[in-house]
Amino acid sequence: MRLIAMIFGAAVLAQAQNLIPAPARLVAGQGKFLITEKFHVAFSGYREPRLEAAAIRLVARLAKRTGLAIGRIPGAGNAPAALTIACEKAGARVQNVREGESYSLTVSPAGARLHAPNPLGILRGMETFLQLVDQDSEGFFAPAVNIEDTPRFPWRGLMIDVSRHFMPPEAIKRNLDAMAAVKLNVFHWHLSDDQGFRVESKLFPKLQGMGSDGLYYTQAQVREIVAYARSRGIRVVPEFDVPGHTSSWFPGYPELAATPGPYEIERDGGTACMDPARESTYRFLDKFIGEMAALFPDPYLHTGGDEVSAKQWDANPRIRAFKKRHGMKHSHELQAYFEKRLAAIVKKHGKRMMGWDEILQPGLAKNVVVQSWRGQKSLDEAARQGYLGILSHGYYLDLMLPASQHYAADPLGNGGASLTPEERTRILGGEACMWDELVTPENLDGRIWPRNAAIAERLWSPGTVTDVESMYRRLEILSRELERDGLTRVSGYRLMLERLAGGYALEPVKTLADIVEPVKEYKRMSTGRYTSFTPLNRLVDCARPESETARHFGKLVDRLTAGQASADEREALRTWLVRWRDNDARLKPALELELLKEAAPLSNDVAALAEAGLGALERIAAGKHDPEWAEGQSALVARAREPRAELLISIVPLIEKLIAAAR
Amino acid sequence: MRLIAMIFGAAVLAQAQNLIPAPARLVAGQGKFLITEKFHVAFSGYREPRLEAAAIRLVARLAKRTGLAIGRIPGAGNAPAALTIACEKAGARVQNVREGESYSLTVSPAGARLHAPNPLGILRGMETFLQLVDQDSEGFFAPAVNIEDTPRFPWRGLMIDVSRHFMPPEAIKRNLDAMAAVKLNVFHWHLSDDQGFRVESKLFPKLQGMGSDGLYYTQAQVREIVAYARSRGIRVVPEFDVPGHTSSWFPGYPELAATPGPYEIERDGGTACMDPARESTYRFLDKFIGEMAALFPDPYLHTGGDEVSAKQWDANPRIRAFKKRHGMKHSHELQAYFEKRLAAIVKKHGKRMMGWDEILQPGLAKNVVVQSWRGQKSLDEAARQGYLGILSHGYYLDLMLPASQHYAADPLGNGGASLTPEERTRILGGEACMWDELVTPENLDGRIWPRNAAIAERLWSPGTVTDVESMYRRLEILSRELERDGLTRVSGYRLMLERLAGGYALEPVKTLADIVEPVKEYKRMSTGRYTSFTPLNRLVDCARPESETARHFGKLVDRLTAGQASADEREALRTWLVRWRDNDARLKPALELELLKEAAPLSNDVAALAEAGLGALERIAAGKHDPEWAEGQSALVARAREPRAELLISIVPLIEKLIAAAR
Repeated sequence: MRLIAMIFGAAVLAQAQNLIPAPARLVAGQGKFLITEKFHVAFSGYREPRLEAAAIRLVARLAKRTGLAIGRIPGAGNAPAALTIACEKAGARVQNVREGESYSLTVSPAGARLHAPNPLGILRGMETFLQLVDQDSEGFFAPAVNIEDTPRFPWRGLMIDVSRHFMPPEAIKRNLDAMAAVKLNVFHWHLSDDQGFRVESKLFPKLQGMGSDGLYYTQAQVREIVAYARSRGIRVVPEFDVPGHTSSWFPGYPELAATPGPYEIERDGGTACMDPARESTYRFLDKFIGEMAALFPDPYLHTGGDEVSAKQWDANPRIRAFKKRHGMKHSHELQAYFEKRLAAIVKKHGKRMMGWDEILQPGLAKNVVVQSWRGQKSLDEAARQGYLGILSHGYYLDLMLPASQHYAADPLGNGGASLTPEERTRILGGEACMWDELVTPENLDGRIWPRNAAIAERLWSPGTVTDVESMYRRLEILSRELERDGLTRVSGYRLMLERLAGGYALEPVKTLADIVEPVKEYKRMSTGRYTSFTPLNRLVDCARPESETARHFGKLVDRLTAGQASADEREALRTWLVRWRDNDARLKPALELELLKEAAPLSNDVAALAEAGLGALERIAAGKHDPEWAEGQSALVARAREPRAELLISIVPLIEKLIAAAR
Repeated sequence: MRLIAMIFGAAVLAQAQNLIPAPARLVAGQGKFLITEKFHVAFSGYREPRLEAAAIRLVARLAKRTGLAIGRIPGAGNAPAALTIACEKAGARVQNVREGESYSLTVSPAGARLHAPNPLGILRGMETFLQLVDQDSEGFFAPAVNIEDTPRFPWRGLMIDVSRHFMPPEAIKRNLDAMAAVKLNVFHWHLSDDQGFRVESKLFPKLQGMGSDGLYYTQAQVREIVAYARSRGIRVVPEFDVPGHTSSWFPGYPELAATPGPYEIERDGGTACMDPARESTYRFLDKFIGEMAALFPDPYLHTGGDEVSAKQWDANPRIRAFKKRHGMKHSHELQAYFEKRLAAIVKKHGKRMMGWDEILQPGLAKNVVVQSWRGQKSLDEAARQGYLGILSHGYYLDLMLPASQHYAADPLGNGGASLTPEERTRILGGEACMWDELVTPENLDGRIWPRNAAIAERLWSPGTVTDVESMYRRLEILSRELERDGLTRVSGYRLMLERLAGGYALEPVKTLADIVEPVKEYKRMSTGRYTSFTPLNRLVDCARPESETARHFGKLVDRLTAGQASADEREALRTWLVRWRDNDARLKPALELELLKEAAPLSNDVAALAEAGLGALERIAAGKHDPEWAEGQSALVARAREPRAELLISIVPLIEKLIAAAR
């Protein structure tokens, strides 16, 4: 945040510009409101337990942020209120997608006032207030500011897959906290898949009993998490993925499957599929969905529908006969039949069905919501056909792509222009997706955050907010605060690296880890090497999806190659390169450990790349063009570009730039 | 741990030597037992839910330590057992001080076997097993070893004061986990003091209602923590400190006080005191202790008795008359009377009374246990008089002393030699004390650990285990594992430093923080500046009691001045000094923040000291003696020795050594 502060010479304005997501409208005021131990919250309008609990949490977080004994000084509550909450009226009994979230927040030297038509707006505004808090030579403060804020899209979600790896309730809760911090409002809980059925069914106890290895949420835990989310203004949409991705249902209930069992939980995915040609399947789903519809209060229920393999359907003569009888030629017609039946069941239990874009087939009920993961096109198509839809294509966090790439994906981007205004209103928003084949509770937070905040901004802030540099700057500030609020992104990274270091010094391991990134997209999964039991304790499991160090180094490289680098910046470049060059030797003993062996070639190449970078620096400083030398580096660069240990060295393109500049 | 591994060329032996506390007897075996995902625990003897839960925790911790999917692979339990638990019989229904804790642990390449007469021994042995686990080029393993272990003292405790600053249940629980890891067996819970009454009384609800600011443990939480401790083999001894240190009792029950109210919770301690001259006081205590005796199952109940000020007693004519009537000349006779009455009450409710050494007055019931905080002498005196006693003098963690100093304190040290063998058996052990006037949940773990492990070793291991270097080496290994098991010593430090950095780079703040230490003993408290509302968010609140960096640097200095430093070691010295010299400039912007301003002179002096150190290095390298130059550094050193911002620069004596060597 200091960078901007220095440029503008006004810390106050800078801090207001640290907000993420950026508010719809912000006017900087004069002066600042000092935060002391006497800070307290008062209600001037409607109040309810949810708001009171939120005020207590706000005070506790402020105390943590400042280290001040805020909320402890008796009698402070009699002083003029520091933050006045003016809420007009109660919200919906069950939060819904059309419930407003706007608020206005005014901070002046005398105090702060947060106004909103309903509790949801107050919850959003509280997060804004907390993000405003900063410190300077006079202590902690919030800058004077006037904010009018409202979201661009009403559906802003994060999906977490808890089937491939179970995520314990506390991991879910800390991520709900982080979601609330960036004003996300839907937690899409992917509760069943081939590798595990993760929720307790009392009607069909063999679902979790034989389909989860004992790792599932009890109904009491579900209720607790749903309440936890609601108190933070977050809806919980459960997903039970059918008719494919269902092998964990079948150890307990093989009669649901399209081919005879016996079944075991599939540890690496599979092609098992429900039998859509039997009435008993629908009777089961009717009861099961009835039970889940009562457990989860949200009006929406997600039934998956993605990646249905026709293999098992085609292999079963009875199902083939069923298709024939119903005049179906293709399996997707059979799936359309299934989805139609399912939509009726979901509707019967008072819910609105939602599914992945494969369910968009002729005959699909119009009240079904489509979640587009395969592309913008299917989202637009759904909107044109009259369906409500949300975008997830472009928001797959498991693909290890940079935040900037997610930031560029827009639910109304690309083809959106070809939609009519009415069709555009059918696009409700988007959802980040965290598929967890390669994620454990240990690295979950680092896989989701801070990149997910870039998506949150895309979905909340005006579409004109697109400054990538600003976004990255604010992600870094946010990361610090999320950690203080309970995320384990930094602490988990450190613990994983210490395991890799195995008692040797941590620092050299971290130096390497900080500049490598996991291979992108489906490269790891497509090795076929992973099951849900594969230990995820290697360097690739620690390494960040996007190297912050490389990004900072890249900025210095850009300055240098543009001939704009200061002496300090040149020195900083050199310091990094020296550190990387020398790191291999420091890492040597740890590289003999079983877990870290595979990183030896990477470490070696990093040293060589750094050496090349230093060579380039020297030549650039001397103003000497040396094409022969540059040419001589190409074999190294080519080798270093190749993934090893499923990792990429993120500084390769930056070293290439330096070499090119010395050419 | 690597250091030793390299010296012995045998990682196996080295890892066995990492145990803390060191076991009574250890024989290294041949080979190692590989830990894989198939690892599991089997019971061959007596089993009970407590042991089963402990086995599940062991597996979970092993999974965390290794990142392997231990405990998840179905069917692994059918393979030959990896760790066999052979427990002979059940333990006491309520754990007591004479309950055995010995165990034997044999690890061979084929597996491990843990044998003990009772569950307590099994719990101790499990911790030893976990500490044995290491990794090398073949993966994770436990070295082949044969351990026979038993504690030196039966009472090995940690007292945590939760009155001056409330510590939430999760903070207590993570410290109970850490206690279990180093085989401590008594959690002494200092539940009431002037600044807060921290436990729910149903009979006298105004105790917590008006004496805690709402920060107290409900009885349900107490029961949960007691059960949590028991499942880890830890007794919980509650302390209600009377008749002094009681001002938090009086807002609700002023009639208990020696002088008329009204009373408020004292925020900075006080001299308020119970009225020992009224029967109603004893009636109240009878009922209250009855309630607490039922809540806390331990046979012991601690009633404090320390630092009773006679001021209020002397100020009250009725109390003066009471003294006269009973022929008492001194206030300590009045306290003796009070303690005698109290001991009868405690006994009536089936408990054994325990108190600080001030209670050792003529007429004290012989079954009372004395906790010596004022010196070894009072402990020996108690033993001579026939009392059981434990040592806390020398174990006060709040004094910010080095681990080595605590390590040197021995319950049977000094005067112990003058005791008869029988008298010596009356010394049950010791307790570390964490008084929390200057501690919050944020820095609690760093204040207790790892120093507390040195005390744990003193109390468990044979008295001949006294190698300070080895102790420090093992503390560092332990620290890493405790963090993985849930302590927030490292993560909390980082968050506090980030607050100080206020958005500027963290690293320069950490570089400074790593080499400063809070002033020692009662220097901070005696400023009179602190109340329980004073924010504890300054550099002094982050700084470690004992700088690990300075200790490592000190070793290098010793090598150099002994003329034994290798080129690498000389380079390492220089690198540290350069880093410290340059740090002041890097820290400059953050030093303008309100929280960090006060550290500017320290930062400045560190730079100057480092410059002096570099000057010394140069002269030593050149073999040049330069008394004039050395003399010229004395003003700097003298200034740097003085505390500023309640901090000491821990490298001062080391720089002095370097200067002296260049003289």
